[in-house]
Amino acid sequence: MPSTFSLKSRRPVTDDLLNGYPLDGQWNGYVKNNDRVLLKVINYSTPTSAGAESIDPACTWVEQWVHRAGPREKIYFKPEEVNAAIVTCGGLCPGLNDVIRQIVITLEMYGVKNIVGVPFGYRGFLKGVPEISLSRRVVQNIHLGGGSMLGVARGGPSVKEIVDSMQIVITLEMYGVKNIVGVPFGYRGFLKGVPEISLSRRVVQNIHLGGGSMLGVARGGPSVKEIVDSMQCQRRWMRVAVVGVPKTIDNDILLMDKTFGFDTAVEEAQRAINSAYIEAHSAYHGIGIVKLMGRSSGFIAMHASLASGQVDICLIPEVPFNLHGPNGVLNHLKYLIETKRSAVVCVAEGAGQNLLQKTRAMDANGNIILGDIGVNIQQEAKKFFKEVGVPADVKYIDPTYMIRAVRANASDGILCTVLGQNAVHGAFAGFSGITVGICNTHYVYFPISEVISYAKQVDPNSRMWHRCLTSTGQPDFI
Amino acid sequence: MPSTFSLKSRRPVTDDLLNGYPLDGQWNGYVKNNDRVLLKVINYSTPTSAGAESIDPACTWVEQWVHRAGPREKIYFKPEEVNAAIVTCGGLCPGLNDVIRQIVITLEMYGVKNIVGVPFGYRGFLKGVPEISLSRRVVQNIHLGGGSMLGVARGGPSVKEIVDSMQIVITLEMYGVKNIVGVPFGYRGFLKGVPEISLSRRVVQNIHLGGGSMLGVARGGPSVKEIVDSMQCQRRWMRVAVVGVPKTIDNDILLMDKTFGFDTAVEEAQRAINSAYIEAHSAYHGIGIVKLMGRSSGFIAMHASLASGQVDICLIPEVPFNLHGPNGVLNHLKYLIETKRSAVVCVAEGAGQNLLQKTRAMDANGNIILGDIGVNIQQEAKKFFKEVGVPADVKYIDPTYMIRAVRANASDGILCTVLGQNAVHGAFAGFSGITVGICNTHYVYFPISEVISYAKQVDPNSRMWHRCLTSTGQPDFI
Amino acid sequence: MPSTFSLKSRRPVTDDLLNGYPLDGQWNGYVKNNDRVLLKVINYSTPTSAGAESIDPACTWVEQWVHRAGPREKIYFKPEEVNAAIVTCGGLCPGLNDVIRQIVITLEMYGVKNIVGVPFGYRGFLKGVPEISLSRRVVQNIHLGGGSMLGVARGGPSVKEIVDSMQIVITLEMYGVKNIVGVPFGYRGFLKGVPEISLSRRVVQNIHLGGGSMLGVARGGPSVKEIVDSMQCQRRWMRVAVVGVPKTIDNDILLMDKTFGFDTAVEEAQRAINSAYIEAHSAYHGIGIVKLMGRSSGFIAMHASLASGQVDICLIPEVPFNLHGPNGVLNHLKYLIETKRSAVVCVAEGAGQNLLQKTRAMDANGNIILGDIGVNIQQEAKKFFKEVGVPADVKYIDPTYMIRAVRANASDGILCTVLGQNAVHGAFAGFSGITVGICNTHYVYFPISEVISYAKQVDPNSRMWHRCLTSTGQPDFI
Amino acid sequence: MPSTFSLKSRRPVTDDLLNGYPLDGQWNGYVKNNDRVLLKVINYSTPTSAGAESIDPACTWVEQWVHRAGPREKIYFKPEEVNAAIVTCGGLCPGLNDVIRQIVITLEMYGVKNIVGVPFGYRGFLKGVPEISLSRRVVQNIHLGGGSMLGVARGGPSVKEIVDSMQIVITLEMYGVKNIVGVPFGYRGFLKGVPEISLSRRVVQNIHLGGGSMLGVARGGPSVKEIVDSMQCQRRWMRVAVVGVPKTIDNDILLMDKTFGFDTAVEEAQRAINSAYIEAHSAYHGIGIVKLMGRSSGFIAMHASLASGQVDICLIPEVPFNLHGPNGVLNHLKYLIETKRSAVVCVAEGAGQNLLQKTRAMDANGNIILGDIGVNIQQEAKKFFKEVGVPADVKYIDPTYMIRAVRANASDGILCTVLGQNAVHGAFAGFSGITVGICNTHYVYFPISEVISYAKQVDPNSRMWHRCLTSTGQPDFI
Repeated sequence: MPSTFSLKSRRPVTDDLLNGYPLDGQWNGYVKNNDRVLLKVINYSTPTSAGAESIDPACTWVEQWVHRAGPREKIYFKPEEVNAAIVTCGGLCPGLNDVIRQIVITLEMYGVKNIVGVPFGYRGFLKGVPEISLSRRVVQNIHLGGGSMLGVARGGPSVKEIVDSMQIVITLEMYGVKNIVGVPFGYRGFLKGVPEISLSRRVVQNIHLGGGSMLGVARGGPSVKEIVDSMQCQRRWMRVAVVGVPKTIDNDILLMDKTFGFDTAVEEAQRAINSAYIEAHSAYHGIGIVKLMGRSSGFIAMHASLASGQVDICLIPEVPFNLHGPNGVLNHLKYLIETKRSAVVCVAEGAGQNLLQKTRAMDANGNIILGDIGVNIQQEAKKFFKEVGVPADVKYIDPTYMIRAVRANASDGILCTVLGQNAVHGAFAGFSGITVGICNTHYVYFPISEVISYAKQVDPNSRMWHRCLTSTGQPDFI
Repeated sequence: MPSTFSLKSRRPVTDDLLNGYPLDGQWNGYVKNNDRVLLKVINYSTPTSAGAESIDPACTWVEQWVHRAGPREKIYFKPEEVNAAIVTCGGLCPGLNDVIRQIVITLEMYGVKNIVGVPFGYRGFLKGVPEISLSRRVVQNIHLGGGSMLGVARGGPSVKEIVDSMQIVITLEMYGVKNIVGVPFGYRGFLKGVPEISLSRRVVQNIHLGGGSMLGVARGGPSVKEIVDSMQCQRRWMRVAVVGVPKTIDNDILLMDKTFGFDTAVEEAQRAINSAYIEAHSAYHGIGIVKLMGRSSGFIAMHASLASGQVDICLIPEVPFNLHGPNGVLNHLKYLIETKRSAVVCVAEGAGQNLLQKTRAMDANGNIILGDIGVNIQQEAKKFFKEVGVPADVKYIDPTYMIRAVRANASDGILCTVLGQNAVHGAFAGFSGITVGICNTHYVYFPISEVISYAKQVDPNSRMWHRCLTSTGQPDFI
Repeated sequence: MPSTFSLKSRRPVTDDLLNGYPLDGQWNGYVKNNDRVLLKVINYSTPTSAGAESIDPACTWVEQWVHRAGPREKIYFKPEEVNAAIVTCGGLCPGLNDVIRQIVITLEMYGVKNIVGVPFGYRGFLKGVPEISLSRRVVQNIHLGGGSMLGVARGGPSVKEIVDSMQIVITLEMYGVKNIVGVPFGYRGFLKGVPEISLSRRVVQNIHLGGGSMLGVARGGPSVKEIVDSMQCQRRWMRVAVVGVPKTIDNDILLMDKTFGFDTAVEEAQRAINSAYIEAHSAYHGIGIVKLMGRSSGFIAMHASLASGQVDICLIPEVPFNLHGPNGVLNHLKYLIETKRSAVVCVAEGAGQNLLQKTRAMDANGNIILGDIGVNIQQEAKKFFKEVGVPADVKYIDPTYMIRAVRANASDGILCTVLGQNAVHGAFAGFSGITVGICNTHYVYFPISEVISYAKQVDPNSRMWHRCLTSTGQPDFI
Repeated sequence: MPSTFSLKSRRPVTDDLLNGYPLDGQWNGYVKNNDRVLLKVINYSTPTSAGAESIDPACTWVEQWVHRAGPREKIYFKPEEVNAAIVTCGGLCPGLNDVIRQIVITLEMYGVKNIVGVPFGYRGFLKGVPEISLSRRVVQNIHLGGGSMLGVARGGPSVKEIVDSMQIVITLEMYGVKNIVGVPFGYRGFLKGVPEISLSRRVVQNIHLGGGSMLGVARGGPSVKEIVDSMQCQRRWMRVAVVGVPKTIDNDILLMDKTFGFDTAVEEAQRAINSAYIEAHSAYHGIGIVKLMGRSSGFIAMHASLASGQVDICLIPEVPFNLHGPNGVLNHLKYLIETKRSAVVCVAEGAGQNLLQKTRAMDANGNIILGDIGVNIQQEAKKFFKEVGVPADVKYIDPTYMIRAVRANASDGILCTVLGQNAVHGAFAGFSGITVGICNTHYVYFPISEVISYAKQVDPNSRMWHRCLTSTGQPDFI
């Protein structure tokens, strides 16, 4: 059994001190396989307590535990024999380079010599695409810039071709495929980094449009289960560890405190919100609208509104609203203009899609063209204020690409660093089919199947949403 | 009993929808007094698990709960009768204005009309110092700049004079007085915002130097207990609620995930570390040294090092080190220069004070002049490299004041907003002698006495410190 | 004749040193009315020299001088009798608050007591709109935020109503009205801050659409000349000094090195360009398109491209281009994708309007709907790459509002400060109908009529445009 | 004669358009050797006009011209035979990487294949130090980070060794060696990048201490003239072009509008000044002191003070001042504390050295230890306020290294780009012993000897200094 990681980092420059070190058995730098972290830490005294999820009148509190992440005393692979590959899939997210960097650094500390990056997602597994050789020297400063040094893309070869050539694949996967609106099983597609999933996604979409079911997907391509099975199969034979680091700027993964890039996105969104505030405040009857990321979950919009303190109306997918009518958003905007002379609206891209679908059609390929709720509100507001005879200067800002491309802030830098380290620890511990994550401020391993059953969403009864309402002062819009 | 807070924010612009609202009894927007949050969420399987604090071989996991923060259905004060005062004490910390702002906004939402700011700490309670009238209009944009709109200062009048004129004092107190090195009871002085504590601190210092004990303090001034008692006494008679929002940029308060300003400090420290890295990297045999805040706790240095990925040596008060000798810092610097051509050191201001005390004297007043460990390392490094005949270009950066004065980042903006809201909720719920805080990502109320028994410190056996070591690659320096 | 300004700032705290000061006659702190600054400082040796504007083979160099800005020994108004009003018109521009602030501070140093701000442009002159009282205390920190503390807007009352109530109007005017496409006399409308001009602009637009001429404008409203005459007339009777500080983020005012806000816009545009670069670089065959301000002049796009070093194609209104065809932009994009795998395009909003007009119609009101060239290029590029069978990932960023709303950078801060000081100096020197500006690094006064005859544009033969071409490496697209 | 540069950038992607291009003779993209730029552009009407430098009562204005920079039609070297080397010397300055990058890119556009970087200043010419191969790919993104990718250092081999191996050396020289205090010929040492000058500098220092003269330098090493002669000699034989890009963050080079890095330094200094302002403003009787770069010239301090609008006292080397006495700085600080409650001081590092020399001695090596004027003012202020019995909280910030290490802002990015391009144009035009620079907003070539006769300084009679005084409101301190 190869020697382990944790001690290595404690080895002195000179060997003189070695004797002073605790023996491996006494060293308490390792995480034990039985170390556990609690999932739920609030005990609600009644079902009507703010945020209570239970409908059980007794509100019995049940312990639920997950595995603690970290270096194990015994490792599963011989570092010198390992071929490690890193691939980034999906769209950009602040921190991708930080994760890549830390995985490489940690692999080197384990003693792994052969580390490659797969360029442009799974597309990079295609024959003839040269891999990128990675080492500490190469990745030293990549975290100082945004984007992904490996490039991101979708599509690619078959699982078989992939597993033929690698031992550890640490995938930074875009969990939460969110462009399949209204499909409850859509989130199963979160493993889209894996090529067959890409295939199956296309199938899913077609089937969805035709009213099919998830089972139908299996006909067009492998189901998620088949893929996971095939990977486990491969693992049994080939000793491949697949460890995910969930990449979703929207923070919509179940059970995790937050995903990397989210904090940076909220930070960078301040710039757009403040611009909207300045434009609104400096104009006569100015209204500034900012559209933020969040196709099915409004975490970015909610947190950005809370942080800024400059938002009057925050609209998210989880909370339905009307634009028109006495309790609609537009009427409240009129009230704000009359009392405050200006207003700022922060809207998640997935909010109010029901308001748009009525007037939109399918495109040539039969896909629903998602309406732009930000533009819609701008247009409706202009029309509304013209009708009611109140002058209003309505401006719209979409900072999406400027947010995605920034480098990670310090908080995400730490999160990425620890996730990257733990991804390597997890692979060397012999885990596969797991994802690293942070839970109640502690780092843990989740089974992938646990966290992808559906997308995490803002609970309209949660304290955090109520805090947001307290900050904006907005009423219900229904 | 007055009507409560939470519902107000849900009241629609027009009254039409009122009927659709749930009755107070059905509304689940309140936090119940019995709602609880778990303190400890890791179950260590053995005493040798990384970070395990127990020495019990069975590692029995015991539930410990704290009160959940938030608005209560029944409130203790009639808002229209309340006189609220806000005072900021101690040094600057990013987020002070955010907390002030949110307290004012939340008080107004409860219906409080009379809100004042006390200028320049408790100094502002002195007769003749005019209070600052506060309202949403006044505080609207104060969070866009750093500092404290109220000003900060030390010293002032007696508790009696203070409590004579106010009903709710929400104090942003500088928990964790850290300039009393080596005094285990020093942290009882955390209530230093209260004038008598200032007196007692002076006594503590004198006694410490003379080898006295905590009991001696009671003779020179009131003990913490006496003050808390007197406040409780006052509260009983005067119905004064004193709620603290712990202000310590060092993040050294027990039981809390983090304190406000800490995240911003780590973020802003990146600028200094990157400058040190650039200077070191661009020079021939360059060494950059950055001194960060942290008189007794190295959280800022540790997190900033982890986030930057550019630090080779991180030195904190909790982990002893030698500068000289075969395993000393200087020898490792030489090794880094020889192998990497440059090096970056990040040192907490309180690190290695033992190395300095030997060569330093007391000043005229008998106080220990704390040595500047950053300057010391710079000087020793210059001397060392001259002696060993290796050229080295050693630069030193102290960004302290530039970090303290920045505005809060988005993450701290949210933290401050929620702490500010909960401070008001806590006061209206009738609590006093409590502090708000965040624990395992949830907001709670702690008894002040619980969190001030000593300063939170970095555990050298914790995973976080090991992650930092993994990132820096540094050995032990003993 | 009142005593003058410059000496005041040199008066010592105590009067002891007064004797040591030079007499007014000896003091060389004033600018003399005959001090002059050269307009043209390059002597081209041949008409084919890069950037030469002459077609005279001898290229005779002729001196042209303008008045130097600054404090005069003798001032025209008694400060204590002056009523000063400041109004900001048009759209936002970084530095507005800096200029307002410095005008107030300098007026106070002259001894002016009565200073007001007119809210929301000339709209603020309407009866019943309260003025904003201004003083150093009020404006102290307004430059730390973007926008205009006075608010901006268009439209308003008549000149007569305005001049009835003020003595010095320092107008921050939006020179270069640019939304009257194709009207050569459109730029005479630069005085649009003055209400009649607003009227005439509406007339101009209608006449333009009806095929009328400038003469027709005179019938529908006063001509610029009439307005200037009427103002001079008013001045003769009322001693009103109107001094402009040209506000155009596009830097399109003749004879000036640059206008305030331009430098900040170029700086802030880097963020968008870098985002586009990161998005393009991280995607497989990524193309990033950034649209920047500049309706008739491409200075922002050109300077931002030069500064970034990340732009492959820079498109400005002054240089015609084709999208399609062998030399078109799209073909060059294909070449870039094939050789570099990614490309970044920076396009000024007014570039290539000829490509759009063909396919666009008038709206219900008969106004030309200006096409969005950025969106157009994105759509054409997507279509093109689909047709040629090369995958391409085309992203589009429009950072306009986020650029306009930022605070001025240091360079613009200085420019605004000096422009603001000189605006007051100019008014007190008795000038009216002038504008302050910077020319060959020196501050001067221009007659308004000189600088508004047409909009300054990028000269395609200038060295600066060639430098931009050298940096981007782009060919001609014709 | 080889073909020239400028046309190349205009060559289309396909050859189809070639016929449409003007012949070389008709192309007006080149700069002619006789194109000239005026040096002085103000005509002072009297010797007492603000800023007038003349003492001639008639103030006759005399034309003075310099050569215009840019690409020439005929070039001196065959690009394919050129070996180009780039070396950066002295301390860090924002923009170094931008200049390196643009030189490489422009050399490649000329067709140069062999481009190397010399690491760590002239130290890199030592035998055995490997050169760094440079190409567009290598330098593509280096301008996104601060520092110098080549590294900087002092000392090195002989001229002979250097010229043996290179054809074009484009030196980014640290003009204005400023650590030879009081030596009028010190600035001749600006060529210190050349090794012999390094030698001679050591001699100069020794001789200076011994009271020697410039002639003595010739004995110890070559004089500047000898070196320039020897380089010209080398050039005659070896066809080496040495072109300088003056690197001094202090902006202290004669005849130039500004040097690269200066604008960025002023921008970055805002952060420190604002921190000092916040600390001063938030404290009771707070005083913030910021020390900025500028050993003999106060441009950074003056411009940073003007830009910030937050500085009450600006102290520069060119304007003498007293700390003590009725007109001293400390008395004015007391006045500010009493009237404004806080104050901010911005001091250039070279200011008030006369106040320090009295109390300072030479160190063991006989060198003058330059006093830290910032620390001195802090200490004196603390003492003073204690004596006068006014509480004061004095904080000191030294942001030097954090300013030097930042990347260039957009304005400097453009300056560096154009300087870099013109350095290559100048070398290919056959110039040597020249430096590129910007003069009255146009780019020119200066003979090195012209710009190094002494350091440019702030003129206390200039309008810019008076503008600074108008902004700070400070009196004379004598």
